[in-house]
Amino acid sequence: MFPPETTVGEVGERALVRHLRSRIPVGAGVVVGVGDDAAALETGPLTFMTTDCLVEGIHFRSEWSPPRLLGRKALTINITDIAAMGGIPRHATVSLCLPPDLPMGFVDGVYDGLLERAAESGVNLVGGNVSAAWAETVIDITLLGSGERILRRSGAQPGDLAIVSGYLGAAAVGLRLLGQGARLTEDGFLQQTGVWTESSAQYVEWCLRAQLDPTPPLALARAVGEKDVVHAMMDLSDGLSGDLLSICEESGVAARLDLAALPVDPAAAVLERARGGDASNLALHGGEDYQFLFAVPRDHHDALKDLAVVWDIPLTVVGEFLEGEPAVFAAQPGGSFGILEPQSHDHFRRKGPAGGGGA
Amino acid sequence: MFPPETTVGEVGERALVRHLRSRIPVGAGVVVGVGDDAAALETGPLTFMTTDCLVEGIHFRSEWSPPRLLGRKALTINITDIAAMGGIPRHATVSLCLPPDLPMGFVDGVYDGLLERAAESGVNLVGGNVSAAWAETVIDITLLGSGERILRRSGAQPGDLAIVSGYLGAAAVGLRLLGQGARLTEDGFLQQTGVWTESSAQYVEWCLRAQLDPTPPLALARAVGEKDVVHAMMDLSDGLSGDLLSICEESGVAARLDLAALPVDPAAAVLERARGGDASNLALHGGEDYQFLFAVPRDHHDALKDLAVVWDIPLTVVGEFLEGEPAVFAAQPGGSFGILEPQSHDHFRRKGPAGGGGA
Repeated sequence: MFPPETTVGEVGERALVRHLRSRIPVGAGVVVGVGDDAAALETGPLTFMTTDCLVEGIHFRSEWSPPRLLGRKALTINITDIAAMGGIPRHATVSLCLPPDLPMGFVDGVYDGLLERAAESGVNLVGGNVSAAWAETVIDITLLGSGERILRRSGAQPGDLAIVSGYLGAAAVGLRLLGQGARLTEDGFLQQTGVWTESSAQYVEWCLRAQLDPTPPLALARAVGEKDVVHAMMDLSDGLSGDLLSICEESGVAARLDLAALPVDPAAAVLERARGGDASNLALHGGEDYQFLFAVPRDHHDALKDLAVVWDIPLTVVGEFLEGEPAVFAAQPGGSFGILEPQSHDHFRRKGPAGGGGA
Repeated sequence: MFPPETTVGEVGERALVRHLRSRIPVGAGVVVGVGDDAAALETGPLTFMTTDCLVEGIHFRSEWSPPRLLGRKALTINITDIAAMGGIPRHATVSLCLPPDLPMGFVDGVYDGLLERAAESGVNLVGGNVSAAWAETVIDITLLGSGERILRRSGAQPGDLAIVSGYLGAAAVGLRLLGQGARLTEDGFLQQTGVWTESSAQYVEWCLRAQLDPTPPLALARAVGEKDVVHAMMDLSDGLSGDLLSICEESGVAARLDLAALPVDPAAAVLERARGGDASNLALHGGEDYQFLFAVPRDHHDALKDLAVVWDIPLTVVGEFLEGEPAVFAAQPGGSFGILEPQSHDHFRRKGPAGGGGA
């Protein structure tokens, strides 16, 4: 190990690559791991492939995210994409762009989180790339998964229930809390409450964790991938309003969303209420909750509930898919009805860390 | 298509993703392509995986590289890694980090090159990611390949010949020419000779192409991957001095390198001679030639030559692998002998575009 204050520029490219390689264990199904021109992997007849990155100043800030949690999140956001297809995550490559003045403590911290999350989720790190960068740190991961069945976004049918796992809005509140000076330690515990008093500490910690170290219900997604209970599945990364519209667009259907039914995260709700607000809007548009959205035929609703009970994951029916041109109609508690425009974060337009765009 | 002067910030994330998706054709073996949480791909029992990126200001400069050639090179440098394992390139994801003020003409130009090179090499683009960036454009590609046999770096044995395909040094001269104002057009033809006169135009064009649009002998690599003629193979990306040492380290052998035998690129040699220099040093340390280095048992030398003749690729015996601790001994024409230190470019230490570091 290098002293944490040493910069990557002082370590140099060859030594840095050698050091990172030495930290990566060899995993099952890896014929050739890091160190050759490419990795060689045992695969089945069907392989899933996804890629997602975290860019400093866009998706995270070094002073807000402990490096270990950043490494965990960089892998998690890819794992949810494989899980949302019904796949099992297997092999990942990690591409790092690092400014030369970055301390090794940061790089090793990111790797601590990557290796820990990989071990938790059965993922092998099988290769990668280290490049210098002028200004921005980029953590770009590509993940392969295996599977036998494919759960697409395009399978939703009119009459299917729109069902969400878990609660929404905590990650968006967590992002705001970071801006207000609240912080987690490297180990994920509360370090500073920012503008909040100690009486709110448990809610602040919960929402910060949702933002910095999301824990999607992967066991449920995997169980759903193995059974024939849903027509479509996707992960909620950009926000329910935009992601529900994506399923509508891919499936050629419309959807009704019952705003009164939104599963607003309880901690997020407490904090929003305390500042005179309402967390519903964050639950609807906030993004980064990394829960799952399902299109479920009514006669499979009970079967899905049976799976969720096993893993103690709450499920909420938030609406229904309908015949019609792709659009989301928001049903107000009073009964009024209107087209819901997605308000997903667009990083090219508004500046600040959160979200991302998959192609 | 968007007008080329429109910026990606004006287009916005969702529209940009939709636009790039619409440009990607569906290929063979792709069950689910772009547009879902992950791609779903038909794979065999063995899959190769590699990742490599181009970072603005480190590996390229926008004012030096026409975007179409940049897109081609970003894919080529990954294809050579799969080829060097004996694999056939199949499926790629493309991750782009783009500053908001980048014109769409640049993005579409990069995609022109990516799609063109993908079609030439039988690669499917199956997904990707678009992220905003504050300052630096990053083109990060992960490529999967298929294959039945694996050609590792670690197979070299004492007594094997060290053999290089093609010629070396042109890419390094091309980089210097770019610094002297020489330029290629989007179509890869000479636009400006920089400090050179018209009489050198053909050499300048050749070396610029070697740097901006490398064309490794992939057909030869594939033929070698199918036959049992070499003990080890790798692509020459960092420079012969460092790459030969890598084979030694992975194989636990030493090597003798005959400096007089270096296959110096003829055009590079002419230009270096004209300025009173000698291209041997660039052939030895320059990197980015994307030729192949083989460890070949002597009784298979003729078989390898037979393959190379088919594809009209020159082969040069540059030395021999020896028993001993990993090291490269340079044999001078006069007969003297010394340990050769690799002088591969370290981007964390010296600033300027060229090379990269694979983990």
